[in-house]
Amino acid sequence: MRDVAIVGTGCTSFGEMWESSFRGLFLDAGIQALEDADIEGKDIDEFYVGNMSAGRFIGQEHVASLIADYSGLANINIPSTRVEAACASGGLALRQGFISVASGISDVVVVGGVEKMTDVSSERSVEILAAASDREWEAFYGATFPGLYAMIANRHMYEYGTTREQMAKVSVKNHLNATMNDKAQFQREIEVDDVLNSTMIADPLTLFDSSPITDGASALVLAPAEMAHEFTDKPVYITGSGQASDTLSLHDRDDICTLESTVKAANSAYNMAGIEPSDIDVAEVHDCFTIAEIVAIEDLGFCKKGKGGKLTEEGFTELNGEIPVNPSGGLKACGHPVGATGIKQAVEIVKHIRGEAGDRQVDADIGLCHNVGGSGGTAIVHTLSKEVDL
Amino acid sequence: MRDVAIVGTGCTSFGEMWESSFRGLFLDAGIQALEDADIEGKDIDEFYVGNMSAGRFIGQEHVASLIADYSGLANINIPSTRVEAACASGGLALRQGFISVASGISDVVVVGGVEKMTDVSSERSVEILAAASDREWEAFYGATFPGLYAMIANRHMYEYGTTREQMAKVSVKNHLNATMNDKAQFQREIEVDDVLNSTMIADPLTLFDSSPITDGASALVLAPAEMAHEFTDKPVYITGSGQASDTLSLHDRDDICTLESTVKAANSAYNMAGIEPSDIDVAEVHDCFTIAEIVAIEDLGFCKKGKGGKLTEEGFTELNGEIPVNPSGGLKACGHPVGATGIKQAVEIVKHIRGEAGDRQVDADIGLCHNVGGSGGTAIVHTLSKEVDL
Repeated sequence: MRDVAIVGTGCTSFGEMWESSFRGLFLDAGIQALEDADIEGKDIDEFYVGNMSAGRFIGQEHVASLIADYSGLANINIPSTRVEAACASGGLALRQGFISVASGISDVVVVGGVEKMTDVSSERSVEILAAASDREWEAFYGATFPGLYAMIANRHMYEYGTTREQMAKVSVKNHLNATMNDKAQFQREIEVDDVLNSTMIADPLTLFDSSPITDGASALVLAPAEMAHEFTDKPVYITGSGQASDTLSLHDRDDICTLESTVKAANSAYNMAGIEPSDIDVAEVHDCFTIAEIVAIEDLGFCKKGKGGKLTEEGFTELNGEIPVNPSGGLKACGHPVGATGIKQAVEIVKHIRGEAGDRQVDADIGLCHNVGGSGGTAIVHTLSKEVDL
Repeated sequence: MRDVAIVGTGCTSFGEMWESSFRGLFLDAGIQALEDADIEGKDIDEFYVGNMSAGRFIGQEHVASLIADYSGLANINIPSTRVEAACASGGLALRQGFISVASGISDVVVVGGVEKMTDVSSERSVEILAAASDREWEAFYGATFPGLYAMIANRHMYEYGTTREQMAKVSVKNHLNATMNDKAQFQREIEVDDVLNSTMIADPLTLFDSSPITDGASALVLAPAEMAHEFTDKPVYITGSGQASDTLSLHDRDDICTLESTVKAANSAYNMAGIEPSDIDVAEVHDCFTIAEIVAIEDLGFCKKGKGGKLTEEGFTELNGEIPVNPSGGLKACGHPVGATGIKQAVEIVKHIRGEAGDRQVDADIGLCHNVGGSGGTAIVHTLSKEVDL
């Protein structure tokens, strides 16, 4: 297995991109990544794209071939592969690209993620997203993702005394971070009361506990570590990669306050990298709902199970906290184009490790990305580092 | 890179499986494959599934997690990945599993494919399948796959003098082969006149020039070659794997009578295996329409461009011909559950190399599988062999 570096990044603005098409969004992110790595289409050996549901959002499957074609890659005959694991599709594309370079199958691999969600109504979007749950045992009975995560929230409050205010604090922090990110969907501050008093979606989760419907795309250029300096002065190395599954249905799990898939994926990544959770300087985690960030920092080992709410309240995860979490604004405030999120997380961590994150810059040599599909049926964790030998 | 063996195979009956669910179909194929390899769920390290459009056919995305869950695998936390490249999704799953084992990422990998197409109307199926073409430049203007392949057929007739009777002969041959395959959707013989006189779909292609709408699933167990004999007395080795892309739209190509992606993918596979097209003893190729088989045997190098129709007429591809093509009955008569087809092709080739193909058995040490997405936006070719060192 070869060491792998990220040598280029690209990301569109996230939001309601009425003027952009699915293919146009990806083109924008992809060109940024190629320019950042100072390469052209003909230099690319292979391509992976994460996308959850272009089939239902825009009536288009076969999207890897579409993008290879539409990007005008000189080398259009390269293997082009779409992967899908619901909202973890982006992280999955990153992992498949990592495997391809690490194994020696390919040298220069572009990995990306894209989703165009606003060409259908919000109601239809929620229905499409519900296809990430178990159609026969969850969605059929009316369960949507706010409802599933609301069950997790209620149980977490019952078991550990987590409060509504602690959850709201996740949203307040991520909105504040997003004011410093000019790609973010919501670049404005909110207060705890704004969250508590916003429209109830699924008790106890309100509108401002929930990530939005978003259009966007993101891309990375990967290369073998030994070639990295041909492309950039500031390579960032992928030191750990973990992927794990769990029951698709929430009701089949012993404990819905823990995403077993996150625990397993994180342990795989930590073991590969030879690090501990306490070595992480900055993390982008999957805050599709505020409770999800609290559960994530526990499952990733940043704190003990049940302590996530209290630590969030105390500022543990703020930009100047012990482990800054979601400096980009997270899914909540940066936005959540489901196929693109897992790649955007890596784009953000690379910015911090390179020292190019502007006003939201944190001091970081080692970062982590955590991407979840559905209610934890899939989880994918990557660790990134400034140095190749840890 | 390690050598990789297929050590177990499974396949459901193909057809209109009203009594079976999407997940139930896969379970059936998966259990057959596990029993064939004499392993249990806990022995599996990783899982890949090819599926084109469960999101639109049955309202379910995130299908790799679903299957890992529903299969009741003891080891449910394994990485489970869905890949999609339209009708080449199955071949893509095989390739990703091959890469995983070859690279040393995993030892025992299950790869499968599944599609449940008959829960929607035939008209809706055709619309869903059209999402494999370019939505904005083909499907939007009313082009469906019969229409796109009809353009290829007309041009092939004009350029090379290929006749309607030669195309019909593909269908007649594949229907005859399917009479010897108890898993096939159509186990009955037809005559050339039946094809010519059946309902016109898209001039010159009739109903009997076209593959059907089908439910089905198929699965393989892969393992490192050096471990193969732990699982089976008759391992079959994957000696070559190639994947290539082309423009998604037909109109963007210089020559619509050649699928450039097939040519590139085949050359990659032949080079990896160190063989020539003439070394192939048996092939399963992507005959979504009769003209597609004629184009395929040319692009795979079995004969010169333009000679495919004439050679088909002369029996070159019959069971006792020079290179038997589609002994299973092919997509045309065995059926075409789009995500499952690429894996079923390998299941069929393994049967012939093992000498377990019953009445349709051909004498084969080396076989080839050829799986196409859309009108050639993706093509995937694998070569399989009785011996590991060619």
